[in-house]
Amino acid sequence: MKTLMLTKNEVNKLLNMQDAIQSVEQAYRIYAQEMLEQPPIMSIDVPENNGELDIKFCYSKVDEIISIKSASGYWDNLKSYNLPTLVATIILLDGKTGYPLCIMDGSLITGFRMGAAGGVSAKILARNNSKKVGVIGAGNQARMQIKAIKEVMDIEFVKVWAPSLEDMQKYKMDIEQELELDVKVCETAEEAVGETDIVVTATPGKSPIVKSDWIKDGMHIIAVGADMEGKQELEPEIFNRSKVFVDSIEQCLERGETRNAVKLGNITPNDIHAELGEVILKLKRGRTLDREITIFDTTGMGIQDNTLATLLYRKAKECGVGMEIDLLSIAK
Amino acid sequence: MKTLMLTKNEVNKLLNMQDAIQSVEQAYRIYAQEMLEQPPIMSIDVPENNGELDIKFCYSKVDEIISIKSASGYWDNLKSYNLPTLVATIILLDGKTGYPLCIMDGSLITGFRMGAAGGVSAKILARNNSKKVGVIGAGNQARMQIKAIKEVMDIEFVKVWAPSLEDMQKYKMDIEQELELDVKVCETAEEAVGETDIVVTATPGKSPIVKSDWIKDGMHIIAVGADMEGKQELEPEIFNRSKVFVDSIEQCLERGETRNAVKLGNITPNDIHAELGEVILKLKRGRTLDREITIFDTTGMGIQDNTLATLLYRKAKECGVGMEIDLLSIAK
Repeated sequence: MKTLMLTKNEVNKLLNMQDAIQSVEQAYRIYAQEMLEQPPIMSIDVPENNGELDIKFCYSKVDEIISIKSASGYWDNLKSYNLPTLVATIILLDGKTGYPLCIMDGSLITGFRMGAAGGVSAKILARNNSKKVGVIGAGNQARMQIKAIKEVMDIEFVKVWAPSLEDMQKYKMDIEQELELDVKVCETAEEAVGETDIVVTATPGKSPIVKSDWIKDGMHIIAVGADMEGKQELEPEIFNRSKVFVDSIEQCLERGETRNAVKLGNITPNDIHAELGEVILKLKRGRTLDREITIFDTTGMGIQDNTLATLLYRKAKECGVGMEIDLLSIAK
Repeated sequence: MKTLMLTKNEVNKLLNMQDAIQSVEQAYRIYAQEMLEQPPIMSIDVPENNGELDIKFCYSKVDEIISIKSASGYWDNLKSYNLPTLVATIILLDGKTGYPLCIMDGSLITGFRMGAAGGVSAKILARNNSKKVGVIGAGNQARMQIKAIKEVMDIEFVKVWAPSLEDMQKYKMDIEQELELDVKVCETAEEAVGETDIVVTATPGKSPIVKSDWIKDGMHIIAVGADMEGKQELEPEIFNRSKVFVDSIEQCLERGETRNAVKLGNITPNDIHAELGEVILKLKRGRTLDREITIFDTTGMGIQDNTLATLLYRKAKECGVGMEIDLLSIAK
């Protein structure tokens, strides 16, 4: 019994947004069908090194695969050690025997499955004729979201706003080059949101950036940035006017953008319309009118890592990518 | 930045009980000094495959190393797949950057550090002239405990009792061969406990095996088997007569042998005399009289995996053992 090792380089070659979208849809279905065990996220803070570490642990009964992802954010890595901020490692275990099937770098997977989540929501919840996208933020997720949305619809142009002009210009260059989309750099967040069909918020913001006044009927909002207590990007009044969808009610009430709107009394948990998996399974309806405003709030779940890492593992086996190690044999 | 891979075979070559004892003492010191972050154990059950999986997650501020151990028990592995029941994998991350320093098979480490815990307790709590050991159970831990106790004192003989004669005979053969100790196979548990100085209980029992009547003044009891709700090996009356020591008060009240005695009202949490680390650090006293009965209840902690795996990682680097993998580099 051997364990497959996949380096970041190998994961990079195997990974594409199409697969990520398919995996995330599958993850949402599994979650809605309760065909999983997914304990709450486990976290450790390392304040003395400006770092934090999460473990997402999940057993998919559909694939009979257990995934363990450790993901760290060390905010001084770049300046102190010239190392990336975000590092993740994923172990996949055989749910039938507990044996480690695969150990892979997980640093790229998180970004892809977060992007894919927004893409899946756009495909399901945005108006059919959506084509203009406004993005608040110019970091990795602001890129990944566009990459994913482009897989599910034709984008006419992207408008971007971020606090730094330099970041926006770099963003414009990257997106125009890699995805061949027009990007308009905006002077204000309001300008970036105005006259768009889909609004993506992907900043680490801690107070509302997007005002309710700016949001017009028919828009779809993808709230990616707020994924822990204290983070916020939307004026909570937007929730009063919107049909609210989430990846996980439990988790979004605890650490998502939805938490803020509920805490401030703008909505109650009962006002959350559905988890996206319920819409995919047609247990609940999605958008029913063109004029509805839809919000998709996502905080990310272990099952998304599980399905995407499982797909990559199978693809690697098929293509003969990676190195097999006899981690468990022992000479007596 | 490379990640060191250590297979079970390599871990087996590097691992010895002396190092395990030293690591466990260090772990107990770190725990007593609160120089760690150690979230509660995270568990998943896989009843359809008669399996279970635990994750122990720990950050040692002393070594600045984060450890993640996934350990599974799949009770049909041997008969269904001819695979071992217990499989574990450990990842060590650099606490300064979050980078994976080492991924090693962890299947042997658990057994060694559990054994070592008993050994440390015997060294600190047993009467100075202790030399006769009674063992209830004839499995891996019944072996490991003796291996560890032998490191800290001269053993005159070992008495063993287990439900299966065959298991006891195999045990006798193994211990006599490997450790050069006399083993007496007993007809009853009472006989195994009688006229000994140290009693080890290392069974998966769910009701009391060892009666209070059998326990004489001056004995030291090492309660290893009970490590989750529902497990029990000692008649709770023994606790009324004993000075109780634990590895972690919090954890032993939740899942140890102590839990049963507290739940049944034999003792209260305040009757727990000390955590072993407090005795090692001389914050509390251990045994003060020869006639005292001492109990050491251990359920195992992530910090023990952390210190032992860190020691093995450093030893492997020094000796040039293991394979280095460029898990995180990426060709742009």
